[in-house]
Formats: sequence, C-alpha cells, structure tokens
Amino acid sequence: MYIKPIGVVHSPFKNREDIKKAREKGLNGFENSEGELEIFGEFEPGLNDIDSFSHLIIIFAFHKSRQRNLFAHPPLDGKKRGVFSTRSPDRPNPLGMTVVKLLRRDKNRVKVSGIDMIEGTPVLDIKPYTPKDLKEKASFGWLTEK
Amino acid sequence: MYIKPIGVVHSPFKNREDIKKAREKGLNGFENSEGELEIFGEFEPGLNDIDSFSHLIIIFAFHKSRQRNLFAHPPLDGKKRGVFSTRSPDRPNPLGMTVVKLLRRDKNRVKVSGIDMIEGTPVLDIKPYTPKDLKEKASFGWLTEK
Repeated sequence: MYIKPIGVVHSPFKNREDIKKAREKGLNGFENSEGELEIFGEFEPGLNDIDSFSHLIIIFAFHKSRQRNLFAHPPLDGKKRGVFSTRSPDRPNPLGMTVVKLLRRDKNRVKVSGIDMIEGTPVLDIKPYTPKDLKEKASFGWLTEK
Repeated sequence: MYIKPIGVVHSPFKNREDIKKAREKGLNGFENSEGELEIFGEFEPGLNDIDSFSHLIIIFAFHKSRQRNLFAHPPLDGKKRGVFSTRSPDRPNPLGMTVVKLLRRDKNRVKVSGIDMIEGTPVLDIKPYTPKDLKEKASFGWLTEK
C-alpha cells in the first residue's frame, strides 16, 4: 500500500532529542506546544469545514525512524513493552497519531497546539475528533501510575 | 512511503452497505459491534502488555475505497464537506482510524467491540488509547446537532 504526504508539520521541536526532553516532563509535556500544519495546495479544498471542530486527529509518518521493532522501552516507564502497547516511533509501520487542538486555519495553514511531532514531519491525513473518539471511561494500563 | 498490513479485521459487517446501515442509526451505531483483530504471527510479540489498556486505537486501510476525493457527503448530514472534516473512506490517503474497546486477547487474536470496519480490512497499526487522546472539552462542529 502506497501513501503520500498531504502536507508537512512545522514544530518547535527540531529533532527526536527535543521530543524526548518534553516527554520526560510527563504526559502533559506537549499540551501548550504550538505549531502549524502546512497542507499542500492541491489538498487545500479538503480543509473546508474543519474550523468548526475544536480538535483534529493527525496521522503522520515517523519519517526519522529507521527501526521496525516489536518491543519498546517507553520513557515514562523504562520496562520492555510490546510495541503495540506503546506510542514508540520504531514500529512495524512508522505511522503516528496525535490529537491536536485547532487554534485557527488560514487557507492551507492550520495553526494547532498539542504538537508532539518534529519539524518536517509528513502529514498523511487529518480527521475531525468526534464523540466516538472520546472514551470517558477508559483506563490506561501501565500508564495509570505515571 | 510503503505500508504493509500487520493483520486483518474480522467483522460482523461484510460490505460498505452494512456499514452505511449501522451509521444511519447515529453516532453510537457501532458501540456494541464485536469483532476480532487477527494479527499475523510475526507481529504477535508486539501485542505484549496491550491487555492492560481498556481501549485501543486501530489504524487501518480503507481497502475498498477507489476514490481519492477532496469532498464528502457524510450520511449524518448530507451536505458537501471538506473531506478532512469527515471520516469518509474516499480521501487522499485511504487511512482509517477507530478507537475500539478491548475485550480480551488470546495469542494473536484480539477480541474488541466498537468495530466499524468491514470484514477483511487490513490492520496497519495498533496503539494504546492514552490520556492524551481523551479530550473532555472537545466540541464537534457540524456533528454537534446530530
């Protein structure tokens, strides 16, 4: 299956080391990090109507990942975990997913907060965050005590 | 960017028409639909530790989609919307994302509820649903009145 970028992330984080530092601050280390999704011109019409949603789901490529691991050592934990129970970039398909807060859209540029991707990350898809994505009774496994 | 399936969805929905009927029941039309993620043997070790999470994020391919549209007419609404403000399968990259509830895991088979994919859907990634994905103050644009 072949996938192509629809845009690119502009981020205050320039490399994986910057992300790691923010992550070590805990689960809310990214809440206030602002950035921009620059969507390529040909896809701009697809952004119509997104302004009315407060949050967007961004699917992106972990383009700096060079490993396809089945295990990871999450920074909040340090134990060896099955990669599908982590958000590690080094996974069988290097796909990332983050929910961001929409601040404003100006033509093909979407200003958001909650960015945890690095500068230059390829954007693959944008979806509205809907009631189906909000699981109020969720529990969070090994993350619960972090 | 090349992406390969890590497994396949087993679903009570056999085709897009079945999905459409469930969707017409409203936003909660899928809450009780049970199914199974069959993960290919080589990736099974990556499932370690997922059992402790209540919900999982599934990224999958809309493998029956043959159109790469910039607009969609969502069934709950009927108006023409920018595709990135909808969850339509007919989008520039045919990637889907659904949050499911984990019922139980047995080796390489993960029983879940909240399935809204059709039988045979290729699974691309599984991620734990974490506190960062739960946006309690979200608002839902044109979906709000549905």
